[in-house]
Amino acid sequence: MNYTEIETPAVLIDLAIVRQNITKYQKYCDDKGLHLRPHIKTHKIPELAKLQLSSGAIGITCQKVSEAEAMLSEGGVDDLLITYNIYGRPKLERLKDLSKRCHLSVVADNSVCVKGLSKVFKETDKPLRVLVECDTGALRCGVVTPEEACMLAKEINEEPGLEFGGLMTYPPVSQQSKVNDFLERAKNLIEKNNIKVDVVSIGGSPNMWEVEKIPVGTEYRIGTYIYNDRSLMERRVCSEQDCALTVLSSVVSTPTPERAVIDAGSKVLTTDLFGLSGHGHIIGYPELVISQLSEEHACITSDGPTGLSIGQKLRIIPNHACVVSNMLNEVIFVEGQKFLKTQPVVARGMVL
Amino acid sequence: MNYTEIETPAVLIDLAIVRQNITKYQKYCDDKGLHLRPHIKTHKIPELAKLQLSSGAIGITCQKVSEAEAMLSEGGVDDLLITYNIYGRPKLERLKDLSKRCHLSVVADNSVCVKGLSKVFKETDKPLRVLVECDTGALRCGVVTPEEACMLAKEINEEPGLEFGGLMTYPPVSQQSKVNDFLERAKNLIEKNNIKVDVVSIGGSPNMWEVEKIPVGTEYRIGTYIYNDRSLMERRVCSEQDCALTVLSSVVSTPTPERAVIDAGSKVLTTDLFGLSGHGHIIGYPELVISQLSEEHACITSDGPTGLSIGQKLRIIPNHACVVSNMLNEVIFVEGQKFLKTQPVVARGMVL
Repeated sequence: MNYTEIETPAVLIDLAIVRQNITKYQKYCDDKGLHLRPHIKTHKIPELAKLQLSSGAIGITCQKVSEAEAMLSEGGVDDLLITYNIYGRPKLERLKDLSKRCHLSVVADNSVCVKGLSKVFKETDKPLRVLVECDTGALRCGVVTPEEACMLAKEINEEPGLEFGGLMTYPPVSQQSKVNDFLERAKNLIEKNNIKVDVVSIGGSPNMWEVEKIPVGTEYRIGTYIYNDRSLMERRVCSEQDCALTVLSSVVSTPTPERAVIDAGSKVLTTDLFGLSGHGHIIGYPELVISQLSEEHACITSDGPTGLSIGQKLRIIPNHACVVSNMLNEVIFVEGQKFLKTQPVVARGMVL
Repeated sequence: MNYTEIETPAVLIDLAIVRQNITKYQKYCDDKGLHLRPHIKTHKIPELAKLQLSSGAIGITCQKVSEAEAMLSEGGVDDLLITYNIYGRPKLERLKDLSKRCHLSVVADNSVCVKGLSKVFKETDKPLRVLVECDTGALRCGVVTPEEACMLAKEINEEPGLEFGGLMTYPPVSQQSKVNDFLERAKNLIEKNNIKVDVVSIGGSPNMWEVEKIPVGTEYRIGTYIYNDRSLMERRVCSEQDCALTVLSSVVSTPTPERAVIDAGSKVLTTDLFGLSGHGHIIGYPELVISQLSEEHACITSDGPTGLSIGQKLRIIPNHACVVSNMLNEVIFVEGQKFLKTQPVVARGMVL
């Protein structure tokens, strides 16, 4: 079957491009002497996690406990980092179960979470590795000074059932020297307390080709690189040919020559603008703009006639690949024009 | 179980408020002599569709064929309108199957789709009712002039296997006289051709209390009224107490006194701003702003200290209820503080 026979809207994943992207960035990290720990949030598919691991990744990253459970469901993953503060007995019990099935690390940025982790893990004979999450400028989670990082590292080191695992940050874009300064200073402070800092985990797709600007980093967490998307194209981090995820959509209405409506709305493309104008890049039609989304419709507008006709199929590179992965229960694996198989998105919607 | 014991993040639906909302708007439409045809996109749950029908709705609205299939899966629905141009053999075959199971109507805004419908339905002995979709200013689908509406109505009337069902529009907000003028004129033109216009289907939540401004309308399609949301609160269409859908979330980080981070990100709240600033209304904390979303985090900021602490649970009224319904496989039915049951969102992610 040719991909054009696929019912629309559908999310297509080109496995040939996926393999290329994995191999290329693994080689880059290998050359830089940096461990690679892909974030599965982009694909949410155990089969692709295994592909990343077999190419040389040292483990995977998940954001939530339920994502980690989904990733372990099919085997083949034995090193897993959850980059999230985990709080509350039900999640901690599930975390304890997970720790029996893989080499598990988590992060924390506060004492309340550290004490919660300790309470559950002191009952086990396998300590849990906990990294300190640092806010190096992204203004999300993380301790906000190197001094706080050091205090929390000491606390983790002293709590029964826990083992200090290092430092972790979700770095802001294009502020690498600030990020490096924070992490260097935190590392030095912690080491002065005779605590080893084995891992300094950095990451992010926008600055993926500039890892040498944060020399303190020992491992790189990255998600989007496996699929790439319009936001990375616009930043010149990748080209159109590197984009493995596309949305296949059909024109369902052409009310005026200057306006066409397609059958992929926010339920596929999402409203995530990611700082861009327009809701995606239409392959072969760079002049057309996806100007307006509702749940099941997207309007395509143009200064002149769009040239589109009813029934015509379009392939769209979305602004942000990760969020599109989370919309449908299944994606379609293709290779170039060729249909391969329908693939469940195993960890879709896993938010617990 | 009290709802505060529910694991977060979760989408809660208060059934007491749902019942109130359904009853109140049904009575309003009954008083105005208008048929009510709720759009299931807001809830995607057959059980709630049945509640709407048993309260007096004349049928339901779906946007896609797969949503209609999901709504018929549990019985109890026998009148169904799909407000979408349906194109291509696979969807048309599914539509044919659907027409055997209920009183089915669809819309069309172009000849290509009308001919496609006819090709499949002329093989059956039950004609398909087709309404003409009119663009009365929303700039999405629909014929753009009353004259075009008349031409398409005549075509539907002549095509074998089809029956002209009336006019349908997705009206722009607060432009009722323009909408009424378009539809009146189209109706008159069609009737001059000795074709009856049985149904004029209008709708939309923002103007739900002003139906008399479009007197030509015979039926009202509406989705959000069953749950309500922050966008309707801001328009003073409903109050906080009328909002049946809330997102239950926990504080997972308080990096500074002025910033807290919760565990519901765009994978629950979505990035749909719906013209508002901020990503939701936190019940009990009107001064706090959900200022930034990533997939699994939302940042709450405040001019002064947020007053929030780790582990604290918050209930959030999202900007747009319909899109939140589409994010998780299950919602939680509650009544006030009381947990009732976990409810699958049967038509979630149905985009075909």
